Amino acid sequence: MPSCCCIKNKPVRSANSSWGAEPPRSPRGEPRPAGTAAMDIEKVNSMDFGEFVDVFGNVIERCPLIAAAVWSQRPFSGLEDLEKHFFAFIDALPPSGQEGILRCHPDLAGRELLRGALTAESLREQSGAGLTSLGAAERLRLAELNAQYRARFGFPFVLAARLRGREAVPRELARRLQCPPAQELRAALAEVKKIGRLRLADLLAGHPAPR
Amino acid sequence: MPSCCCIKNKPVRSANSSWGAEPPRSPRGEPRPAGTAAMDIEKVNSMDFGEFVDVFGNVIERCPLIAAAVWSQRPFSGLEDLEKHFFAFIDALPPSGQEGILRCHPDLAGRELLRGALTAESLREQSGAGLTSLGAAERLRLAELNAQYRARFGFPFVLAARLRGREAVPRELARRLQCPPAQELRAALAEVKKIGRLRLADLLAGHPAPR
Repeated sequence: MPSCCCIKNKPVRSANSSWGAEPPRSPRGEPRPAGTAAMDIEKVNSMDFGEFVDVFGNVIERCPLIAAAVWSQRPFSGLEDLEKHFFAFIDALPPSGQEGILRCHPDLAGRELLRGALTAESLREQSGAGLTSLGAAERLRLAELNAQYRARFGFPFVLAARLRGREAVPRELARRLQCPPAQELRAALAEVKKIGRLRLADLLAGHPAPR
Repeated sequence: MPSCCCIKNKPVRSANSSWGAEPPRSPRGEPRPAGTAAMDIEKVNSMDFGEFVDVFGNVIERCPLIAAAVWSQRPFSGLEDLEKHFFAFIDALPPSGQEGILRCHPDLAGRELLRGALTAESLREQSGAGLTSLGAAERLRLAELNAQYRARFGFPFVLAARLRGREAVPRELARRLQCPPAQELRAALAEVKKIGRLRLADLLAGHPAPR
C-alpha cells in the first residue's frame, strides 16, 4: 500500500502545520514530525498529491484545496514557478472566493492566538512580529480595530506580520480601515501572497525569503 | 469585541468538525462543544463569517474556503438555496481546482481512519457505513484498490459512504476504476455533492437528508 497521505519517516519534513491541535497535524489530518527541513524542487516534483498537500497545504492559510489544485501543474521549475501557480489560482477565483481565502485567516493578536488555536505557521509569524507579547491595552486596541475592519469589509485584517514590527500593525490596520473596499481586497490578497511566498521559501532550500 | 470566530456558548452548535484533533476543533481552529443541534435558515443568515465557517466549514471536506466564499451569497432562502451556492462554487472551479477538492478527502477505510486523523464528519460517515470494523482481508483489498485508483486518477476515491453498505464500497471502487478519467472526475464530484447535501441537511432543522 503506497504511502499517499503521510510523509512520516520520509526525508522530507513538513512545515509542521497545525490546525490548532497538538501534536501538529498536516492539512490532511496526519500527525507530523516536528521541525522543518529544506528540500529541492526535484524532491517537490517527485511527491504524490498526499505528500504535496501535507507539505504545502498551509502555504495559503487553512486552504489545502489550493495546494491540492497546484499539484496538477507539476513539474515545477523552481520556487518562483511553484509560487506562480499558487498565485494564479488565487487570481482566477471570483471575488467571493478571494474573500473566502481571507476569511480562513485568523485575526492578528486575536481570539485564535489567545486560545492556542493558530496554525503553527501563523503562530510563528505572529510571535516573530511580537504580537504574542502585547500588553492588555495594545491587545484591546487591536481587537477594536480588528472588529471595525471585519464589520467594514466582511473579512479579517490580513498582514504579512513577519515583515512588520508590532508597532506597525495597529498603524497599518487603522490606515487600511479607511480604504475603499475594492482597493482593500486587492491589498489584503497582496498580503496573502507575501505570506505564501515566505512560507514557500521556508520550505525550499537555497531560496532566501523575499521581502 | 465581537465574537466573529467562535460559537462557543451560543445556541447554534456546530457539526463538531475536527481536523483530526481532540478536542474537536472548527475549521478556523476553535475548540467546539460536542454535539449537533439543528438550526433554521434565519439563524444561518444572521451568522457573521466566523460563525458560518465554524458551522459549515466542513460541508465540503477540509475545504473551509468554500463555505467562507458561500457566506458572500447570503441571505439564503433555505437548505436548497444554500446547497446551490456550495455546488455552484465547485462547478465554477477549473478541473485542477475540482481535483484539488477531491485530494482533500481521505481514503475510505484508509490511513487517516487507522490513525484517528479523520474529521468528525468523515469518521461518522465511514463508521455508519461499517468501514471502521472491516477485517484485515477487507482492509487490505480496499487499500489495494484505493492505491490503484489514486495512481490512475491522481485523486482519492470519494463515495458518499452513508448511502452505501460496506460490501458496496469495494465493488463500486473496482467499477469506477475502469471509467475514463473525465467521466470519473464528474462521478467523484457528484459524490462530493451528495456528501455535502447530507452534511448540510444534518445542520438544518426540518430537512430530511435526501438520498
